[in-house]
Amino acid sequence: MSIADFPWRGWSHVVKLDPDKEIGSEQLADIISSGTDAILIGGSQGITYEKTDRLVTRLGSLQPAMPVWQEISAEHAVLPGNDGYAIPVVLNAGTTEWLIGKHIGAVKQFGGLIPWDQVVVEGYIVLNPESAVAELTKAVIPVTLDDAKAIAIAAERIFGLHVLYLEYSGVFGNPEWVEEIRRVTTGHLIYGGGISTAEHAAVMAAFADTVVVGNAVYERGVNAVRESVAAVKEVHASRQVHKQKRGLL
Amino acid sequence: MSIADFPWRGWSHVVKLDPDKEIGSEQLADIISSGTDAILIGGSQGITYEKTDRLVTRLGSLQPAMPVWQEISAEHAVLPGNDGYAIPVVLNAGTTEWLIGKHIGAVKQFGGLIPWDQVVVEGYIVLNPESAVAELTKAVIPVTLDDAKAIAIAAERIFGLHVLYLEYSGVFGNPEWVEEIRRVTTGHLIYGGGISTAEHAAVMAAFADTVVVGNAVYERGVNAVRESVAAVKEVHASRQVHKQKRGLL
Repeated sequence: MSIADFPWRGWSHVVKLDPDKEIGSEQLADIISSGTDAILIGGSQGITYEKTDRLVTRLGSLQPAMPVWQEISAEHAVLPGNDGYAIPVVLNAGTTEWLIGKHIGAVKQFGGLIPWDQVVVEGYIVLNPESAVAELTKAVIPVTLDDAKAIAIAAERIFGLHVLYLEYSGVFGNPEWVEEIRRVTTGHLIYGGGISTAEHAAVMAAFADTVVVGNAVYERGVNAVRESVAAVKEVHASRQVHKQKRGLL
Repeated sequence: MSIADFPWRGWSHVVKLDPDKEIGSEQLADIISSGTDAILIGGSQGITYEKTDRLVTRLGSLQPAMPVWQEISAEHAVLPGNDGYAIPVVLNAGTTEWLIGKHIGAVKQFGGLIPWDQVVVEGYIVLNPESAVAELTKAVIPVTLDDAKAIAIAAERIFGLHVLYLEYSGVFGNPEWVEEIRRVTTGHLIYGGGISTAEHAAVMAAFADTVVVGNAVYERGVNAVRESVAAVKEVHASRQVHKQKRGLL
């Protein structure tokens, strides 16, 4: 699938739901009707096939229908029949396992069953050393902005990755870093981490193509989603206007 | 650069010259006029800037002019002004260093100076455990053909690599493996290792888009080059005819 066909191109706001966390049915219905563009199912700990299946089934029974993509972190939890699959390549992983090892294993195991046109590969840069994903992947966190930029450029130019995911999971990131990484790359930029207010969402939406809201759903409930959706859509609408004025669209 | 613009697309036969090895001027002139399509400068051991510069300067003084590309294995030996640069990503490296670490380091160091439209990234699969490159990169050699195929597919589908280099350096590879890897991939396939006769060259040219002759130049001299050029060109010409008959061109 070329980047032009990638559904996320049109997704400004995504809610990441963790199969390992409890969420009420009313809350789930509220999220679906919040204005977010898609649901990404994923997490770093305690992910099982059963938990994933249960969450996806609950989502499937709700209206309006909404794209449900699974971000694969444990191959035993891969659910057939999802709308799509996001495969993280952890660019700053400490060993080859999360960079390419697990991927080769999955290709060997699933082979011809993988629906490649429903797959998107995310070049992850893990940026919060305290996060579960940093521990899991033994991530070597970039110390300087130049380090982070070099990883982003290498992902795009050396590997042919078209989607970059700045993963601050658990903390609100450094907007200067996100802005500078946006400036040196041309692909689709996803931001995730610490988005719990409209202000947070607006700051990162100025640079990121997709803003992911995760933990805040469990901490602040659907209001975190509604407020961040509104903020992101407003910032992106104004980016569109600027681009049109500058003749870029 | 898209794969369609990649100069190697049209190169059936390439001679790899090692700056760390001695070669006479007459022999160098013979290689240039042998019918090979390009010279790739590279090696795994003892590569310095001075040795690389000396070899490239000698090649530059010869006629006919021929593309001279440097395969980068040591960043201190990168010579400005070459026709192009091949950057190996060692897919089965044992640590992250040869997979992405050195590349990030080079991007950080050289940054905006890198002429990306003269760069090709090669997804290497190191297949001879006894080779210097296997030792250097702590390569984990695939045990079964399924392992090797999974690496090749992951390189193309997960990473966006369009060029795959089957590196048997020092031994003649397994033609069944090369054939099967050709079958499951769509990118440009390079074969290197143990090509010292026309027969060897013909076998691998049936599957590989580019056949690389390296050590044989130093062991058998220009005859190894001339014979392998003739064999590769003949096999590729007949592949073209078959493709035309089957309506693929």
